[in-house]
Amino acid sequence: MTPWLSALAGDNDIAAILADDAQLAAMLAVEVALAEASADAGWISDDAAAAIKNAIAGFVPDHAQLAAGMLADGVVVPALLRQLRARVDPAHADALHRGATSQDIIDTALMLSLAKIFDLYEARLTGLLAEFEALARSAGERPLMAHTRMQAALPTRWRAKIDSWAEPLRRHRQALTAMRGTLLVVQLGGPVGDRESFEGHGGTIAAGMARRLDLGTASPWQATRDPIVALGNLLALISGSLGKFGADVALLSQTELGALKLEGAGGSSSMAHKANPVAAEVLVALARYNAGLSGTLGQAMVHEYERSGAAWTLEWLTLPPMLVTTAASLRLSLRLLEQIRLA
Amino acid sequence: MTPWLSALAGDNDIAAILADDAQLAAMLAVEVALAEASADAGWISDDAAAAIKNAIAGFVPDHAQLAAGMLADGVVVPALLRQLRARVDPAHADALHRGATSQDIIDTALMLSLAKIFDLYEARLTGLLAEFEALARSAGERPLMAHTRMQAALPTRWRAKIDSWAEPLRRHRQALTAMRGTLLVVQLGGPVGDRESFEGHGGTIAAGMARRLDLGTASPWQATRDPIVALGNLLALISGSLGKFGADVALLSQTELGALKLEGAGGSSSMAHKANPVAAEVLVALARYNAGLSGTLGQAMVHEYERSGAAWTLEWLTLPPMLVTTAASLRLSLRLLEQIRLA
Amino acid sequence: MTPWLSALAGDNDIAAILADDAQLAAMLAVEVALAEASADAGWISDDAAAAIKNAIAGFVPDHAQLAAGMLADGVVVPALLRQLRARVDPAHADALHRGATSQDIIDTALMLSLAKIFDLYEARLTGLLAEFEALARSAGERPLMAHTRMQAALPTRWRAKIDSWAEPLRRHRQALTAMRGTLLVVQLGGPVGDRESFEGHGGTIAAGMARRLDLGTASPWQATRDPIVALGNLLALISGSLGKFGADVALLSQTELGALKLEGAGGSSSMAHKANPVAAEVLVALARYNAGLSGTLGQAMVHEYERSGAAWTLEWLTLPPMLVTTAASLRLSLRLLEQIRLA
Amino acid sequence: MTPWLSALAGDNDIAAILADDAQLAAMLAVEVALAEASADAGWISDDAAAAIKNAIAGFVPDHAQLAAGMLADGVVVPALLRQLRARVDPAHADALHRGATSQDIIDTALMLSLAKIFDLYEARLTGLLAEFEALARSAGERPLMAHTRMQAALPTRWRAKIDSWAEPLRRHRQALTAMRGTLLVVQLGGPVGDRESFEGHGGTIAAGMARRLDLGTASPWQATRDPIVALGNLLALISGSLGKFGADVALLSQTELGALKLEGAGGSSSMAHKANPVAAEVLVALARYNAGLSGTLGQAMVHEYERSGAAWTLEWLTLPPMLVTTAASLRLSLRLLEQIRLA
Repeated sequence: MTPWLSALAGDNDIAAILADDAQLAAMLAVEVALAEASADAGWISDDAAAAIKNAIAGFVPDHAQLAAGMLADGVVVPALLRQLRARVDPAHADALHRGATSQDIIDTALMLSLAKIFDLYEARLTGLLAEFEALARSAGERPLMAHTRMQAALPTRWRAKIDSWAEPLRRHRQALTAMRGTLLVVQLGGPVGDRESFEGHGGTIAAGMARRLDLGTASPWQATRDPIVALGNLLALISGSLGKFGADVALLSQTELGALKLEGAGGSSSMAHKANPVAAEVLVALARYNAGLSGTLGQAMVHEYERSGAAWTLEWLTLPPMLVTTAASLRLSLRLLEQIRLA
Repeated sequence: MTPWLSALAGDNDIAAILADDAQLAAMLAVEVALAEASADAGWISDDAAAAIKNAIAGFVPDHAQLAAGMLADGVVVPALLRQLRARVDPAHADALHRGATSQDIIDTALMLSLAKIFDLYEARLTGLLAEFEALARSAGERPLMAHTRMQAALPTRWRAKIDSWAEPLRRHRQALTAMRGTLLVVQLGGPVGDRESFEGHGGTIAAGMARRLDLGTASPWQATRDPIVALGNLLALISGSLGKFGADVALLSQTELGALKLEGAGGSSSMAHKANPVAAEVLVALARYNAGLSGTLGQAMVHEYERSGAAWTLEWLTLPPMLVTTAASLRLSLRLLEQIRLA
Repeated sequence: MTPWLSALAGDNDIAAILADDAQLAAMLAVEVALAEASADAGWISDDAAAAIKNAIAGFVPDHAQLAAGMLADGVVVPALLRQLRARVDPAHADALHRGATSQDIIDTALMLSLAKIFDLYEARLTGLLAEFEALARSAGERPLMAHTRMQAALPTRWRAKIDSWAEPLRRHRQALTAMRGTLLVVQLGGPVGDRESFEGHGGTIAAGMARRLDLGTASPWQATRDPIVALGNLLALISGSLGKFGADVALLSQTELGALKLEGAGGSSSMAHKANPVAAEVLVALARYNAGLSGTLGQAMVHEYERSGAAWTLEWLTLPPMLVTTAASLRLSLRLLEQIRLA
Repeated sequence: MTPWLSALAGDNDIAAILADDAQLAAMLAVEVALAEASADAGWISDDAAAAIKNAIAGFVPDHAQLAAGMLADGVVVPALLRQLRARVDPAHADALHRGATSQDIIDTALMLSLAKIFDLYEARLTGLLAEFEALARSAGERPLMAHTRMQAALPTRWRAKIDSWAEPLRRHRQALTAMRGTLLVVQLGGPVGDRESFEGHGGTIAAGMARRLDLGTASPWQATRDPIVALGNLLALISGSLGKFGADVALLSQTELGALKLEGAGGSSSMAHKANPVAAEVLVALARYNAGLSGTLGQAMVHEYERSGAAWTLEWLTLPPMLVTTAASLRLSLRLLEQIRLA
C-alpha cells in the first residue's frame, strides 16, 4: 500500500509494529528468551546465554543479506543466524538457536507483535464504544425513520440504530480479550514440531520463554493453524461490523434522506456542492476487503505435512493486510463519528 | 447438489434438517411459541393462542403458493401467513404473528435447526476424536518420517502426527458448545427491530419463546449478523482442520512414500492398480470450498439499514452449503479413518 | 438449494441440464461417440461400436449403485462402466471406454451440458438487452438525478443510466460466444492425459468425437483448467453487472428518492405499505455469491500432478452453483425490468 | 508488504510503476493531455493549454498535503488541483481540469501504468515460455512417472508435463495482448459520467487524449467496471497456472519421488540436509492469494449509482497487490526453472 492509499485505508501504528525492524527486534527477543530459558533448564550454559544476549544487544543487521536470505530460504532466520553467529563467542555459537527451528522464532515473534496490536485494538474499540455511548446519551431519543429492504418502514429512535452499531463491537472486544489466552502463546517445536530436538527439556524451555515474553504456553502448533485463522476471522468481524456502520451512514447521509450530515466530508474536483461520506464508504470497502482476505487466509488451513511453506507464506500474505485493515476501520470509524451531525 | 455429488460431498442428515418441510415445521413451532408466550404475557388471549395452535396443528401447506410467495416477497412468511390465517378462527386471526415480522420467525426457526445440527456435529466430532485417540493408542509409537516444506526432514512418531490432527478438533468442539449460548437465541424485534410493535411486552414474550423453544435470549439482532458469520467461520475451521488431515493422508499415501495404505480406496476406470485416496482428496476440496464460502458469507456483514434483503439472502445462499460441507467433512473423515492402515 | 430458495434464487432450466439424469445422458452420448469415432479410426471394430451403441440405447441405470460408486471412487464412471459392461456383448466389452479414462467422459459430457447452458444464457442476454433498449427508447430522455459517492450530484438522463446497465451485458454476450470456441472442446487424454493409451489413434478419435458431439478439439486439458476457471470468471462478470443493475434499482426505488417504482414489488408480513425491491436485492446477493464462488473456483487452478481429485472436486462444488446463479440473475433481471416504472 | 516479504513474494518493477510518484507523473500526463486535447477541440485556448503544460512541467508536489487530501476527499485529485492551480497563470486556471472529474484523471492514469505493466508481463511470459520450450527440447523425451489422484499411475514423458505447464501461459499471453484493446482506454465522463460537462466536445477531447496517451477510446466506464475485474481474473489465471507449476515441482521434488532436484534450493535453520523448494511453494501461495483477491475484486462489480466510493476503493485495495503478485509469480517461475534439474 503506497503512502497515499495508506493515508486513506492504512494504519501507521500497525505498519510500524509489522515493519521489518520491529519484526527483527521481536525475533531477537525470542532468541534471547530461548537462550535464557535454555540456560535455566540446564540445556545450555549460563555463559552461553550471556554471550548470546550480549551478541544480540548491539547487533546491527545487514538488511540486504537478510532480504537475499528471505528469497533463498523462504524465511529470514537462516540468514539472520549466520549474521548473529558471527558475533557470538565461537565457544558458545552452537548454543544459539539450539534445538529450535526458524518457525519457532518467527511464530513466537509474531505473537509479540500481536500482543501490541491487541492493545491497540482494545484501546480503539473502547474509545469507539465510548463515543457511541455518548452519542446515544445525547441523541438517542430523537426520531429516525427506519428502513427495511431499502424502503422507509416505520419511525424508530436513534438509540436503536446506535445500539445496533455498538453492540457487536462489545462482543468483538470481549472475543479479542479472550483470544489473548488461546492465541498469544509460544511456538516451540524444533525441526519437525515434536520437541525431540530439546532432548526432554522442551516443555521447560517453552514455559520459561512464555514467562519471559509474557505469552502463554501451548503444545507446538506449527502445522495446526486454526488459532491464526480464527484471529483473521475475528478481524473480519470487526471490520465487517464497522462496514455496516459505514454503509448505514452513507445511506442515511444521502441527500434525499438527510437523516444525518457529515461535518468535514469529502470534496469533489468537479462539484463544489458535494459533501462525500468518504470515511463511511471506505469502511464498506475495508469490510469487503477483510472478509475476502479472511476467506483466503482460511485456505491456509490445508497445511501439508509437518510444515508447509505454501500455507505459511499464504498467512504472511493475508494476515498483515488484515491487521492493518482492521486498524484502519477503527481509525476511520472514530473519524466518522466525529463528523456525524444527526438531523 | 445433485444426489450423485451429494453421495460424495454432501450430507443427508443436514439436508433433511434444512429441507423446506423441516424449515416449515420449525417456523410453525415458532409461531406457536410466539402465540403462547404472547398469551402468557397477556398480549393476546389464551383463546387466541389455543386457536392458533389448533390451526397450525393440522396445517397442510400449499407448497406451490409458498414458492410463489418466496419469489414475490423474498421470504416465505407472508404467503405462509395468508394460508394460516385462513384456518384460524376469524375472531383470533389478528392474534396470529401479532407484533412480529417475517424475520423474527425465520431467524428463530433457523436457530431451532441449528440446535439439531450442533447435536449432530458434536456427536460426530466426539466419535472422530475417539477414533483418533484409539489410533494414537494402538500405533502412536510407530516411527514416521516427518516432512517439512515438502521434503523428508527427520523421523518422528505417529503420535505427533495424530495429535496434530485431533487437537484442533477438540478446540472446535469446545467452541461449538460455547457458541450454543451466544448464537442459539430467539430473534424478536418486530417490523424494524426495536420491539415497539409489542407495546412493552417484547422482552417478556421473547423470554417466553426462548423458554418454550429451548433457546437463549438476546436483544434483536436482525441487522447485526456477526453471530451468524462467526458460525460460518467456525464451520470453515472445522472443515479446514479436516482438510489438513485429508491433505496429509493423501500425501502420506503416495505410492513412493507408502507411509500408510487405504483399505477400500477408490478405483479407476482405466488403471486397475490404482487405490485412490478419494475421501482424503474430497476433504481438501471441502476445506477449500468452505473457506471460500466463509469469506463470502462475511460479505453479508455489510447489512444495510434495519434489514437488508441483499445481505440476508446472501446468508441463505452461503450458510446452508457450509452446514452441509462441514457435516460431509466429518462423515468423510470417519470413513477415511476406517480406511487407514499405517505402514 | 431447497425448492423455496430455488424459486427465489435458483433456476429450474439450469438445474434440469445439470441433473444426474441429464449428466448421465451426456456421458452415455460421449461413450457412444467415443466408440463410433474409435471404429472410424479402426481402433475398435464396427461391430463393437454397434454393440456399445445398442447396449447404451436401452440402458436403465441402477442409481443407488452409481451413488455408491461415486462415494467409493470419487467419480461415477467406474460404477457406470460396470453396469454398462454387463449389457454389452462380452465379445465387445473390452471395446467399451477403450483407451479412455473417467475424466475424458465427465469433462466432455460437461461440455455438452455447457453448450446447452450457453444457448440459454445467450437467449436471456439477448432478451434482456432488447428490454433495456426498449426502455431507453421510450424513456431515455427523461431527467434523472445522478448520484456519485452516495450524494445527489447533477441531473442526467435515464439514457445514460440504462446504457450503463446494458453495455457490459453486450460485452459479456460477446465473450460468451467467443468462449464457445475455446471452452467447448472434447477432453480425450486417457489415464494420464498423454493419449498414449490410444496407441497413435488419439488425435483421430478426438477429432471424430468432436465432429459427432458438435464440440471443438484441443490437446488434453485434464490438468490445465484455466478454461473452466475463465468460464467461472465470466459468469461472475455477468451476475456482477446484473448486481450493479439491482443495486441501482434498489437505491433509486428508495422511498425518499422515488426515482422509480416497482409494480408488483414484495410484500411484508408486518407492514402493509411496503413495496420491497426483492428482485433487485436478490440480484445484489447473487452477484456477491458468484464473485465469491469465482474466487474459490480459482483455487482449483492449483491442480496437482496429472489429475487432482481435490482440485477437480472443488470445480464440481463451485461451478454448478455458479451456472445456476448466473441464470437466476438473468431471470430476475428480466422480472425486475418488467416491474420498473420510471418516475 | 515489507521489504523482506517483498524480496520473496513481491516485485520491485511493479512496485515502482505503482508508486505514488509514478502515479502522480501519470496523472499529470493525463491533465496535460486533457488540456492539449481540449485546446485542439477549441474548448480551451491554446494559451491555456500551454500555461497548464508549463505549470505541470516543473511541478514539485507537497506530498503531505496530498496524503491529507486523500484522507479527506477519498481521492488525491482535489488536493492536487489546488496545488496545481496555484502555479497556473490565473487567467488560465479555470482551463485546468475543465469539464473533468477526479475519476477521469485517476482511471486514465491507471491505464498508463497498466500499459507499462502489460509490457513487463508479456516480456516475462515470453521469456518463461522460451525456457519451458528449451527444457522440453533438451529433456522432453525422458521418462517420468505420471501421478493421478496422488498415486503413481503410468509412465509418461517429461514433454507432456512441460507442455501442461507452458500451454496455459500461451493462452494467457494471448489474452493479455487482446486485453490491451478493451481495457487500456481513456476514461472521460465528467462529474456524472455523461460527458455533458464538455458541452458537446467530450468525444473529440477523449479521442485526442487517447491519441496523445497511446490509449484506446471508449464511452465513459466510471460505473461499469467489468474490464477492471476481467483484468483481475486474468491475473489470477496467470498466477494460478504458475501455482500449478509450483505445486507439481514441489511434489516431484519430494525426497521419496526424486523426479527432479532443485539447484540452490532453500536452507533450513535446523536441518542442514534440507533443500527446500521455496520458489515452488511460494508460487502455490501466490496462486491462492491472487485467486482469493480476484473473488474480492469481483465484489466491486456492485458499483452503486454513477460512482461508488466504496466499490472504487475496493478496487484500489485489491488490484495493486494482484498486479504485484502476478509479477512475483512470473519472476519466481523463472527462478524455479533455472533451479530445476530433471532426474
